This record gives sequence, C-alpha cells and structure tokens, in this order.
Amino acid sequence: TKKKLLLLPGDGIGPEVMAEVERVLAWLNQSGRAQFEYETDLVGGCAYDAHGEAISDAAMDKAHAADAVILGAVGGPKWANVPYAKRPEAGLLRLRKDMKLFANLRPAICYPALTEASSLKREVVEGLDLMIVRELTGGVYFGEPKEIVTLESGERRAVDSQLYYEHEIDRIARVAFELARARGKRLASVEKHNVMRTGVLWKSVVTRVHEDYKDIELTHVLADNCAMQLVKWPKQFDTIVTDNLFGDVLSDLAAMSTGSLGMLPSASLGAKDANGRRPALYEPVHGSAPDIAGKGIANPIATIGSLGMALRYSFDLGKEADLVDAAIAGVLAKGLRTPDIMQDGMTKVGTVEMGEAIVGELKRL
Amino acid sequence: TKKKLLLLPGDGIGPEVMAEVERVLAWLNQSGRAQFEYETDLVGGCAYDAHGEAISDAAMDKAHAADAVILGAVGGPKWANVPYAKRPEAGLLRLRKDMKLFANLRPAICYPALTEASSLKREVVEGLDLMIVRELTGGVYFGEPKEIVTLESGERRAVDSQLYYEHEIDRIARVAFELARARGKRLASVEKHNVMRTGVLWKSVVTRVHEDYKDIELTHVLADNCAMQLVKWPKQFDTIVTDNLFGDVLSDLAAMSTGSLGMLPSASLGAKDANGRRPALYEPVHGSAPDIAGKGIANPIATIGSLGMALRYSFDLGKEADLVDAAIAGVLAKGLRTPDIMQDGMTKVGTVEMGEAIVGELKRL
Ligand SMILES: CC(C)[C@H](C(=O)O)[C@@H](O)C(=O)O
Ligand SMILES: CC(C)[C@H](C(=O)O)[C@@H](O)C(=O)O
Repeated sequence: TKKKLLLLPGDGIGPEVMAEVERVLAWLNQSGRAQFEYETDLVGGCAYDAHGEAISDAAMDKAHAADAVILGAVGGPKWANVPYAKRPEAGLLRLRKDMKLFANLRPAICYPALTEASSLKREVVEGLDLMIVRELTGGVYFGEPKEIVTLESGERRAVDSQLYYEHEIDRIARVAFELARARGKRLASVEKHNVMRTGVLWKSVVTRVHEDYKDIELTHVLADNCAMQLVKWPKQFDTIVTDNLFGDVLSDLAAMSTGSLGMLPSASLGAKDANGRRPALYEPVHGSAPDIAGKGIANPIATIGSLGMALRYSFDLGKEADLVDAAIAGVLAKGLRTPDIMQDGMTKVGTVEMGEAIVGELKRL
Repeated sequence: TKKKLLLLPGDGIGPEVMAEVERVLAWLNQSGRAQFEYETDLVGGCAYDAHGEAISDAAMDKAHAADAVILGAVGGPKWANVPYAKRPEAGLLRLRKDMKLFANLRPAICYPALTEASSLKREVVEGLDLMIVRELTGGVYFGEPKEIVTLESGERRAVDSQLYYEHEIDRIARVAFELARARGKRLASVEKHNVMRTGVLWKSVVTRVHEDYKDIELTHVLADNCAMQLVKWPKQFDTIVTDNLFGDVLSDLAAMSTGSLGMLPSASLGAKDANGRRPALYEPVHGSAPDIAGKGIANPIATIGSLGMALRYSFDLGKEADLVDAAIAGVLAKGLRTPDIMQDGMTKVGTVEMGEAIVGELKRL
C-alpha cells in the first residue's frame, strides 16, 4: 500500500522549498524504493487569504488521515493585522495541538562544510551534534486562561498560563531518555525550578522517570544557565529536554550557533496508537523568510532534510533517510551553496539547482 | 549627610567579593569624595540557616531604609531541599518585589582586554556594548496562581501565571526609551506576540509609548529570533527591553557572549518618589559559584562595578563612577587577571589582590 503524505507549503519561501521535496519524492517513487502519494493544502497566511482561517477543517482532516505531514513555513508581515485567532501561526499551533504532537525533535548539527559560517569560534562548534527535545503541546503555548481583559479602570491586563500535568512531563521525558540512549547517553533537563512551580514539577517528574533509565546520565540545568552554556561550550550537551517556551528559544539559539540554520530539519511526533501508527509532522527550523520569498534563492536543504526525518521516524526507511543525508553532504562537498551559506570559492546556486543537484546525487549513490 | 548602604553578601563567593566592595567604600570615605555608612545583613541560604527564612523582616526593613542595597549572590546545592518558599532565591525575589524594583538594567559589554575570552569570533564581539532592560517585578515570576495541585486522580498539575498589566509595561518601556535616548537611540522590544497574549499587550503598549519618543528607532523582535540574533551579530542591538523571563534568559546569553561574564554589574531600580528618592539594588550578573567559594579566587570586578553603578544611578556621583570604571580598565591593562579571565602572559591574582590593585589605581587616578 502507498504511503500517504500531506504537504503544507505555507507562506514565504515555503512553496519554493516544498517543490524540491516533491522532486525528491518523485525520485523515491521512480526508483522503486518506496511508493508515496501526496496531497497538498494551505496553512498560515495563504489559508487565511483563501478561507479566513489559518487552516481549514478540510486540511485538518487530511492531516489526520495522512501518515505524515511535511510543512514549509508560516507567517509574514502581510498578516500583521489579522485577528489573533486567525494569524498564520494559529494554523501551525492547531496542527500541533489537534494531532497531539507533543514531542518536537530539533537536532543542532554543525555541518563540517559550514563550520566557518558560525559566529562561534571553530573549535567551539566543530563536530557539534546535539538533540533538543522540546515539549510541544503544553506549557504557556496552550494553557488557559490566555486572554487580554479590560478592567473596570479601563486598564488592560494580559495573562498566559504556563501549565503542565505530570503525564505530559512523563511522556516527553521518556522520549528524551530513549533518544539519549541511542545517542551519547547523557540527558540535560532544563527548567527554572528556582522561580517556577512548573519547573519544580518538571524536575521531580524527570528525576522519577530517570529510575527507568539508570544507564543515562541525567543533569538538571536552569534555563538561563543553559542559554549561557549553549554559547560557551555547546559540545558539553548531548540530549536536552525542555518545555515548550524554553525549547522554542533554546533550540533556535542552538540552531544559529551551528552556523547551519538553513540546513536544520525537525520532527514533531505524537504517541503510537494501538496499531503502531504515530501522528507526525516534519518542518524546517527556519521561518518563512518573506524578504527572499519568490526569488528562487531559498535553501531547500532543511525541508528536504525534514523529509529525510520522515523517512526515518514515520516510514522505517532508515536506509533511504541515510541516502538523503549523504546526498546533502555530497552536494555540499561539491561546493554548491545557496546564498545563505555562500562562502569564498564555492558555487552559488538557487533553490531549484540545489534540489536538482541533490536528486542527481541520490541517483548516483 | 551620610549616604546609607545595605550590603547583603549572600552565599558562595558573595562574602569574598563584597569584602572588596568594602575596600572601595573605605577609599571613597578616606579620600573625602563621599561619605558612606553601611550595614550588612544576610540573604539567601545563609539567612535561611540563621533564621529559617531567605531574608528576615529586619533585613527587609534595613533595605527599605537604605539609599541603596548592594547584593553579592544567593544559592547553592546546600539548600537544594529546603521548602520552596524558603529557598535562597526567595530572598532576592522578595527584595525585588517589596522594594518595587521593576527595572533591571543589564549592560553587556565586551571589555577590550577580554575579547579573546568569548566563544564568539573576535569581530562578532569586539566593541560590543548593549543594554538589556528587563522588567523585574511582573510576569511569570510573580503572577498568581502559582502552585502545584494534586488532582482527584492523584496526578499533580503545576501552573505559573505570566501576567502583565498595561501600567507595568508602560513604565518599563519609558525607562528603556530614556536609556536608549542617552545611548544609540535604538530600542528593540522583545516578546512572543505570535503565541502569547502578554506579548500582544506588550507590543501594543510599547508602540503607544513610542509616540512620546519619536526620536528613537523602535523595532519589535520575537524572543526566539532575538536569541538567534544575539548569537549571530549582537552588535545589531543597542538597547533591548523585554519581560522578566525572556530578560532572564537573554541577558545571561548576552553576558556570556561578551566573554566578560565575571565582569558585568547590574542595577535594579524602582520609581522615584515625591522626594526624588528611588529604591535601588545593585548586584553582579554572575551567580554564587559554590564550586570556587572560600578559595579566594573569585573575580570581584562585577560586584565592584555594581557599586560603580550605584554611584552613578543612586548617588549622582558620575565622576566617581567613571573613576571606578577607569580603575577596573587600568588593572586589566596592567595584565592582572583572576583565574576566570586568565590568559597567556598575564598575571594571575586572587580576589583580595584584585581588590587591592583596583584601590591602588583609584588612589593614583
Ligand atoms: C511560528 C511559531 C508559532 C513557532 C513557535 O513559537 O513554536 C516557531 O517559532 C517554532 O519554533 O516552531
Ligand atoms: C537567582 C534567580 C532567581 C535570578 C532570576 O531568575 O531572576 C537570577 O537568575 C537572575 O537573573 O538574577
């Protein structure tokens, strides 16, 4: 039976980079390595323009029916003044919440060819390979109350609720311990227990789950200190687990440190159901980059890499995922660079050329 | 009349670095440049050991009565298991809240002598001089409800409330615009309005206050993007204003980037009363460093620099504050280094030697 994907290109450079994902899918199908069928739909500002909502119910139905969703990016200044509930990000947040994608895996890898692109010193980032596991359906993103109220005095007051249940922390901790076990066997749990009650609960639940993973070395790191340590010596970390908001900030920080921001994929996973099926969404770490949209110069590697993660985590196609990674490494070794990663002496290419070159490598490998 | 200080050395290396502040105070008094009198009291773990509270009511009374408070640092593993309300940090948080110190000024400066100490490339940090203005008495630090409850099912749930009133955002924005006006005339307001209602309110209030500061260039930056940009090219910022939690993480990140973490002071200020009196607390950005406490090797420069900020912001002694800054630059130029900032070819000194050398410079200047 065919594997079913939903592609949601979204806004800005999303459609351009997603076209290159389609190119790789065509190769997978033609080479007989796998049989994918896919639909596409709208999410973000483009969905608002079409339907008045950042994602339609019909698109949500397709997302639930698919074996995996690949997303480009959402947002842009064009939608700065749409109502809050309809802003582009609301589409992405609804996908995460309704699909119950509680585990966000964000690898921060320094590609050898790009070591010099980092603002950090070479020795600080060379060989960096860390995994940030971010809780994605709880915390301040979704807790209620979440509102702006006008008081009798006429003054406004806003509130967001940072809220965690024990079971939410338990399940994300288990995902992180499992990943750490397959990696360097070290896990740093990041919260702010000296100020936040959610941090106290977080630390206590992760400590209890650790009982089931005695082979993993667990440390507890305060979020502010973690930000510092990620700048000072990121290689001290192997796997990091943290909440939705700290994960948002720290994973972006780590991604930028690698110098490979335009290269980094991510996976957002739910729990396996009784049939072993697991809801999943894959997207690049970078945003919609409205300033370069439509110019044909966006880097498609992070989105193609996200398809690679889908092959690995949703379709058990580890060999094909390795091929995708090898093809990306191959084109970089050949000196091909989109403008965001351009270096002296390299060959500047656009989005399409980069996608074609990656498929070219795949055919050769 | 004498100026009244309260010194709260706190835990870990706090007492060691505070002793060097006393040395500088002695010089100020003896040289006739100012007349300070001071008391000392306990805060943090040492206060808990003595009184069962992280700060006593008597110490709070002294803090309210003083013209300014200088604090060392609080916390350490020794107090990992004390009840939440009595943990060392609670003393610091009570000082901030009860003294109404809503504006936390955290300069992030790259000292020329220490450019190489940064993990960021020389060209990225050389000459860096930015000011982070952090809201300090609101947000998730103090919002209610803030609790862990056990549900009927036996499961625990934790909540912290990220809460902001319009007037809280208004007053911190004004402090930041004023500072920006005296600096590079550029202000970046940092929040997460795409996910948080407090971010929406924050952005709208800062935009309104901007009407009164049309000479300042205002930009709005999402917190995750700000973390990235602080790593990529921190010099793009001049003054940053943000909430309590983002300010905690981003200011630590910026401080570490400069390579000068052990060197950076901070000021926490309240509003001026009818008599022009303003509550104020000054403290180093670094923590209590329990691993090196009692060894006589801690760097006292950040705490002496905090006294320098007190001279400037609380006592209108700008000339004396400049002298303190010049004395610090002077000892660095002479090659004196505590171990945290030691470099090849420099002279390693301890806490006391560093303090003595700074006073020596002050006498010469
Ligand atoms: C677009 C935005 C809602 C999103 C988030 O804050 O989670 C993004 O920053 C991310 O990290 O995926
Ligand atoms: C010690 C702790 C409570 C404090 C904070 O989180 O504000 C510290 O990290 C700081 O930045 O001053």
